[in-house]
Amino acid sequence: MSTASPRARRETDLPRVLHKGQATRAAILDSALSLASQMGLEGLSIGALAEVTGMSKSGVFAHFGSREELQIAVIREYHRRFEDEVFFPALRESRGVPRLRGLFERWVRRVSVEVDSGCIYISGAVEFDDRPGPVRDALAAMVQAWHDALERAIRLAIDDGQFRADTDAQQLLFEMHGLILALHHDARFMRTPGALQRAQRAFDRLVAHHLVAAPAGAAAPRRPRP
Amino acid sequence: MSTASPRARRETDLPRVLHKGQATRAAILDSALSLASQMGLEGLSIGALAEVTGMSKSGVFAHFGSREELQIAVIREYHRRFEDEVFFPALRESRGVPRLRGLFERWVRRVSVEVDSGCIYISGAVEFDDRPGPVRDALAAMVQAWHDALERAIRLAIDDGQFRADTDAQQLLFEMHGLILALHHDARFMRTPGALQRAQRAFDRLVAHHLVAAPAGAAAPRRPRP
Repeated sequence: MSTASPRARRETDLPRVLHKGQATRAAILDSALSLASQMGLEGLSIGALAEVTGMSKSGVFAHFGSREELQIAVIREYHRRFEDEVFFPALRESRGVPRLRGLFERWVRRVSVEVDSGCIYISGAVEFDDRPGPVRDALAAMVQAWHDALERAIRLAIDDGQFRADTDAQQLLFEMHGLILALHHDARFMRTPGALQRAQRAFDRLVAHHLVAAPAGAAAPRRPRP
Repeated sequence: MSTASPRARRETDLPRVLHKGQATRAAILDSALSLASQMGLEGLSIGALAEVTGMSKSGVFAHFGSREELQIAVIREYHRRFEDEVFFPALRESRGVPRLRGLFERWVRRVSVEVDSGCIYISGAVEFDDRPGPVRDALAAMVQAWHDALERAIRLAIDDGQFRADTDAQQLLFEMHGLILALHHDARFMRTPGALQRAQRAFDRLVAHHLVAAPAGAAAPRRPRP
């Protein structure tokens, strides 16, 4: 459509049409996200989605031109929700250790909620680790964006003098990520009770290890070791 | 076959027949293991295996009566090899911390080798975390057996006075497992260089944290922090 279309049409009819289309797309995406959480990204198909949503295959196809496009849209939507739930709220915490703690605690909480549905980042990494292509690339880009955000929070804690200057930000990130993966494994696959507390306890010890020692006489800014 | 069969037949023909059958079964299992490492346990099927081995479907079927039976046999074979490569050699190390270190280092090495094929324990946990049944149970039992072996090694280190008496064996195990999962994720999915060194460094710090402090004046039994 040309930008020379009458102004009235641009501001009323077109947005309404767009809105309806967007709402349908959002509804399909919502079902696709549930399906992928349960069956994995590889369990997604235009056919399965048509069945779940009660739409025709061609109806679904009109919104997502291919299975690959659908998988990528699901990954982006998952990332958007993850950011809304984990990343943005934690930005309200003051920078440095409080923010890092906020990010980790919300991440833990989200993985705990996902015990019954599954984390697309974690299951997707296993599904696509030997399948190169645009779906793997989209997934890796989202995981990388999240890891970059965590690394920035760690670096702020170093720059602000809260963490020791010799803190290896990528090493700390690696260890934090390991705790989340172990939590997901134990809570979801092994159904071991107490995994959430184990992840939190290990994180507290990890933070304590990197904190700059408090000056003699001052209360140490550490949580008591449970 | 009755145990009253002629002795000669029992000791020559039957073993030979058994041996041939076992060799065929072992060859099928070997292909099945490769297939499962690449495609996941869910990628295994009698049909796919017949194609890979060049046998007839009914030939494969004669050895493994169902897809489920095949998946369980693959899990057991994977476990047997894992024990041969990681568990039994580490038992030669002296008990306590050296043995725990041996177990971890061989585990890390195995995961590194598997960067190009995939670990059935890790991918299987994701595939079967919401699919109850005998395959999930077999997988969980093998993972549990391995975790129990690690926990025993940790407890020996506590009982021998190498680790502090207040060491939480399950907590330490949880954190070690997290390092392995992060290594697998970063090396296999993200293809991040240096993940192996990160896992090893974190393990060294973890061990150092739990060691009983050396008496004043003695050299601390810690590895230098890199």
